[in-house]
Amino acid sequence: MKPVRNTLALMAIVLAGLATTYAQDALPSWNDSAPKKAIVAFVEKVTKEGSPDFVPPEERIATFDNDGTLWCEQPMPVQLFFALDRVKALAPQHPEWKTKQPFAALLKGDLKGAFAGGDHAILELVMATHAGMTTAEFEQIVKDWLATAKHPKFKQPYTACVYQPMVELLAYLRANGFKTFIVSGGGIEFMRPWAEQVYGVPPEQVIGSSIKTKFEMRDGKPVLVRLPEINFIDDKAGKPVGINQHIGRRPVMAFGNSDGDKEMLEYTQGGSGARFMLLVLHDDAAREYAYGPAQGLPDTKLGAFTPALYEQAKKDGWTVVSMKNDWNHIFGFEK
Amino acid sequence: MKPVRNTLALMAIVLAGLATTYAQDALPSWNDSAPKKAIVAFVEKVTKEGSPDFVPPEERIATFDNDGTLWCEQPMPVQLFFALDRVKALAPQHPEWKTKQPFAALLKGDLKGAFAGGDHAILELVMATHAGMTTAEFEQIVKDWLATAKHPKFKQPYTACVYQPMVELLAYLRANGFKTFIVSGGGIEFMRPWAEQVYGVPPEQVIGSSIKTKFEMRDGKPVLVRLPEINFIDDKAGKPVGINQHIGRRPVMAFGNSDGDKEMLEYTQGGSGARFMLLVLHDDAAREYAYGPAQGLPDTKLGAFTPALYEQAKKDGWTVVSMKNDWNHIFGFEK
Repeated sequence: MKPVRNTLALMAIVLAGLATTYAQDALPSWNDSAPKKAIVAFVEKVTKEGSPDFVPPEERIATFDNDGTLWCEQPMPVQLFFALDRVKALAPQHPEWKTKQPFAALLKGDLKGAFAGGDHAILELVMATHAGMTTAEFEQIVKDWLATAKHPKFKQPYTACVYQPMVELLAYLRANGFKTFIVSGGGIEFMRPWAEQVYGVPPEQVIGSSIKTKFEMRDGKPVLVRLPEINFIDDKAGKPVGINQHIGRRPVMAFGNSDGDKEMLEYTQGGSGARFMLLVLHDDAAREYAYGPAQGLPDTKLGAFTPALYEQAKKDGWTVVSMKNDWNHIFGFEK
Repeated sequence: MKPVRNTLALMAIVLAGLATTYAQDALPSWNDSAPKKAIVAFVEKVTKEGSPDFVPPEERIATFDNDGTLWCEQPMPVQLFFALDRVKALAPQHPEWKTKQPFAALLKGDLKGAFAGGDHAILELVMATHAGMTTAEFEQIVKDWLATAKHPKFKQPYTACVYQPMVELLAYLRANGFKTFIVSGGGIEFMRPWAEQVYGVPPEQVIGSSIKTKFEMRDGKPVLVRLPEINFIDDKAGKPVGINQHIGRRPVMAFGNSDGDKEMLEYTQGGSGARFMLLVLHDDAAREYAYGPAQGLPDTKLGAFTPALYEQAKKDGWTVVSMKNDWNHIFGFEK
């Protein structure tokens, strides 16, 4: 049996070599600057058995904001583009929208006028376009829209406008035993139809805002119907609440890009043992957008990352990623 | 390299043999009667690649009710025993309970009087005993209680009063690529502290009823505080809603024991492709309890499994397990 034993030993050496190579190459879109080094050093210490910072696999929870952290949220969040297109598609069935705000302004292409109504206008818009159908019907509507809609600046499908470095990071964390979750202010049912294919995050690991649903029989078939009523807003102080509701554990790592992620990162840091918090700084107007602390005030209230949060990040030892300096690729479609 | 190839082939044969042996022995507490045969036949057909009924691993979702399906719910649900003991423990801090119902009756040992107030009385009881502390504090209270409390009939810790055949079934399904979830009317935070150790179900795969929580800083530490306000009731038509909210997929297999599970089983059956639904029938007064269809009317409203549901199960091809006839062991502590 000696040849076998030798061969197995050789295989073990080769595999160990591959594992090392993989670790080195797992984040190729990240420059070899401080954020990448901090991520790799953290993952190595919490996954090394016997290390004082070791975290058992079942507790390796990593939570990611979506808009502005995993995919582009400018010039406005993708879900709002979706809602606008739905308003146009549904307008023939709603003649009353011609004189009712925010629909009337929207149908004239007047975004500023439409959003003058603030949160109330957005809520009206969401309810009119996201409710009234079954969950399965809504899933199909989202899929159909994503199959043809394109980002106005990049002329690519929105699902191609995801940050390649973050997709690599998700895979790298999973390869190291982490369970990766999305924790977004966006709609949970708007993300689930594509998050598994694009991010490798299955529906049961997507947490988001939601409207209420109701179980009923339609034509003898049991379905869930989406109601025009808010169930949960997964933003700001709602993020730790949503995390506890869905996961029941405090994350070990958390990633965000806006003031809406502040409480999620604080909650993560508040756990005992090693924790890792990261903010994505949008400072690359050429390849993406520059907003938040990189440009003083943000372009829109949504996705705001205030100078105050920047200061908190520095004070509390959170890692801040400069898209311009720390990422050599932003999108997979770049050459 | 020939010896190696031969050895690998030999190993493959041995492993295949082990896999078969494991499948045969995976459910030793189940008699070789119809329910076990139905479960194994179903799992084999949905996991066999190329089979018309094949279900890809990521869609293999199995949902289990808890009270009466995974553990004993008689003479009353464990969480009510917990609430009663909490009332006794907290009574010195609440002199007003001496004259306030349902507390006054409870403290005199008058269960019937306490529950005369119906759902409202139970709600009062839950809010007084389950809210006001942080989620971490509540978790510790549950763990401490379970460490000493014993079932009145079996004189065993409640976590030992779980059904051995169902624990085997959970492990068997996971070994076949299923993700196993608990979907219970009981409190989500009451189950999570022990479900992983007892059932192998991690906190993020526990779905249940919940009260609202609020993120706040206490002594500079970020915590979630449990509020005396219902968030979600995960029972009856709430079960499909909770499943969609947490999992975002329709289960392939679902297991229950009461009318509270009816909609979950209907929702499961309503999906396309192969589906498996099962009800546990409590008909073993000697080894456990006999209630529901086995005894005409149930002992308590909680855990009721009506003759109508029994008829529906037969009509719709759901599997019904007789604890008396189909299980050779009920509890792990039996000799």
